[in-house]
Amino acid sequence: MKIAKLAKGISLKRPLEGGNEEQLTVVRQVLADVRTQGDIALRAYTERWDGYMPTSLQVTKEEIQKAVNDLDQQLYQDLAEAAKNIRLYHEQQSRHGYRLELGDGSWLGQRVTALDAVGLYVPGGTAAYPSSVLMNVIPAQVAGVKRIVIASPAGRDGKIPAGVLVAAQLLGIDEIYKIGGAQAIAALAYGTETIAPVDKITGPGNIYVALAKREVFGEVAIDMIAGPSEIAILADDTAFPDEIAADLLSQAEHDPLACAILVTTSEQLAKKVAEEVEKQLEILPRQEVARASIENFGVIYVAETVSDAVEAINSLAPEHLEIMTNNAEAIAEQIRHAGGIFIGRYSSEPVGDYFAGTNHVLPTNSTARFASGLNVDDFVKKSSIVYYSEKTWQDNAPKIARLARMEGLEGHARAVESRGWKKE
Amino acid sequence: MKIAKLAKGISLKRPLEGGNEEQLTVVRQVLADVRTQGDIALRAYTERWDGYMPTSLQVTKEEIQKAVNDLDQQLYQDLAEAAKNIRLYHEQQSRHGYRLELGDGSWLGQRVTALDAVGLYVPGGTAAYPSSVLMNVIPAQVAGVKRIVIASPAGRDGKIPAGVLVAAQLLGIDEIYKIGGAQAIAALAYGTETIAPVDKITGPGNIYVALAKREVFGEVAIDMIAGPSEIAILADDTAFPDEIAADLLSQAEHDPLACAILVTTSEQLAKKVAEEVEKQLEILPRQEVARASIENFGVIYVAETVSDAVEAINSLAPEHLEIMTNNAEAIAEQIRHAGGIFIGRYSSEPVGDYFAGTNHVLPTNSTARFASGLNVDDFVKKSSIVYYSEKTWQDNAPKIARLARMEGLEGHARAVESRGWKKE
Repeated sequence: MKIAKLAKGISLKRPLEGGNEEQLTVVRQVLADVRTQGDIALRAYTERWDGYMPTSLQVTKEEIQKAVNDLDQQLYQDLAEAAKNIRLYHEQQSRHGYRLELGDGSWLGQRVTALDAVGLYVPGGTAAYPSSVLMNVIPAQVAGVKRIVIASPAGRDGKIPAGVLVAAQLLGIDEIYKIGGAQAIAALAYGTETIAPVDKITGPGNIYVALAKREVFGEVAIDMIAGPSEIAILADDTAFPDEIAADLLSQAEHDPLACAILVTTSEQLAKKVAEEVEKQLEILPRQEVARASIENFGVIYVAETVSDAVEAINSLAPEHLEIMTNNAEAIAEQIRHAGGIFIGRYSSEPVGDYFAGTNHVLPTNSTARFASGLNVDDFVKKSSIVYYSEKTWQDNAPKIARLARMEGLEGHARAVESRGWKKE
Repeated sequence: MKIAKLAKGISLKRPLEGGNEEQLTVVRQVLADVRTQGDIALRAYTERWDGYMPTSLQVTKEEIQKAVNDLDQQLYQDLAEAAKNIRLYHEQQSRHGYRLELGDGSWLGQRVTALDAVGLYVPGGTAAYPSSVLMNVIPAQVAGVKRIVIASPAGRDGKIPAGVLVAAQLLGIDEIYKIGGAQAIAALAYGTETIAPVDKITGPGNIYVALAKREVFGEVAIDMIAGPSEIAILADDTAFPDEIAADLLSQAEHDPLACAILVTTSEQLAKKVAEEVEKQLEILPRQEVARASIENFGVIYVAETVSDAVEAINSLAPEHLEIMTNNAEAIAEQIRHAGGIFIGRYSSEPVGDYFAGTNHVLPTNSTARFASGLNVDDFVKKSSIVYYSEKTWQDNAPKIARLARMEGLEGHARAVESRGWKKE
């Protein structure tokens, strides 16, 4: 792993997979076909691309029960405990509206309501993570979303990975469809004969899924399109090199485009971490992926002072930040931009990926400057309410009419003035 | 205005101006030029398209003061009172994070922080609305955004409309640039020698501005790209036809693509409103615009029952909804999807456009199903925080490692297990 002196202008930016014209053309065709032909197109694309023609698009109760029965009981308990922790954390995010009395009986309000229906896309194969089901579904449930649907492509054996079904069952979700790719996004956005449309689509996917989500955006809501994962670690000489190396590699093993960065005030630590990374890489099952990430995007920066290091982190705005220093909590207070912050030696980042309760869907690619991890707010919307009494109207109508006329909108002024001066 | 029997499947959807390939090519060129050449490109495009070469890109204190001095004092007071009302309403939306103690010293947190910098785009000419400045800036200020910048094209006289400058002055905003179009969006997103970049861009604009906002999205945040305005009115036979007609026209005068709809249980009211609309249209200054909107998209639907009418409104999910019925407040409770709700005869929609305190930037085109009006949440982001003590780590590490291995991520399991079992 490279070691460099910390300088201005360090960055997390990696080449982004934006999709090419050919892929976009395919996606637009699929969207149009599912929109106009519904289930027929959905089945045809499923057969062509997933190599499987489902007798029923929807997963049956028996399939779900079988997945639950087959799972190791200890793992089922672990998943259930993780779900409980995630629910507890997200319940603190519940919102209520408000009512602001203006006097004379007038009031303004804000009403917070859950979305009616949400669809979660779960990628197929080895990327089908039960933890993703927990992280996407629980905030929606806490928000009060009544209908939550999962779409995930079946393998050539016609099956969806058992872990996904078990996670769904744990949360009481039973509307699960064996569909994937752009055709799944189309079905969720537009609806078909058998699948009612949803209002928002969340969850990761390949480039076809990402392009399809971008295309249907506006017609339905989508979550952020996530980039490859990142970790930045801020450490001083009190930290343990092997622990830092292990945490850097836990991000690097996700993706050759993942980015793992250490910023440290200790030159000695820098050297030891570099050695440890190499040592641990050699015995890591996903060595090839992790090595590509570390070699291309991994850097250890040596900073002169802790405050230089903090400023560097704020300019990176990383998805994940670990702080392993003296007074780590006080340093965390100085961080303005980071998706998830992990304080101290025992808060290894995977703790948050699976179990602690915080969400693992976090803003990548420096978007933590303005974006947040998935949370309950993502599944509600707010309406404003105005109630003006006759008295309040009388007192304020001339002012409102003047403001409207200032903007050249005579019709607005007349609407406000149309009350009261007549009939009865 | 057309009268029709209410049926399933009524819609607010109008043809959307998505921009063509040629416009997109121009926008991409402008963005690339400003990104690489900074101020030079920004000035060149300003001269070419706004027909004005500013000596200084930034509006001077003297220009702002002159605008304030020239404005009618009564209007200044009206704007100030509107700003006060808007601030009061939005202050109720302030968020705080939370800290959740887990026992053994462990805790989880959510930290809510304001964006560092926000840019508001204000269109030029007659569409330069002081009220837009209030509606965009105040929520950002309440959120705690430190740097708020306004970009607005100068006219050929080198001036920005006085109303915009006055509104800015009222709110204490003095970083205002005389730039417009895609080049302004590029300057805000990427920064130039004289303009530091922002983290989020809000505000309406023409098709070039809308396309540019879409292109920079991801690099910075943007607000929703607003469609033409809409109003739906739900009324029974207790409502006054002339008031309804005036309110319908106040939306219709915005845009030939605006949409004004009445849903009523009274056939008699339907007929009278249609007559009133025609009568009022004939003497409306913006008759041409309003007539195009009413003729193409205005409809009066006659519903059998109030509950049919309510369901129709929920399926429309309109930007603005007025309820002028008996028990209007109780009916408002049944509305699930609407951007802004105006209850009763004296809550004419322009009351909210200018003065009551609610935001006038509201979701159009049925997106109120999943989107909200502009609010304080749009200017903050949330970070999650995990602090695990040694004891909590010890109790949970085996579970976390099992979940990681279930997903095939050995590096994650090893990271969590790397703590504790060694050294010291």
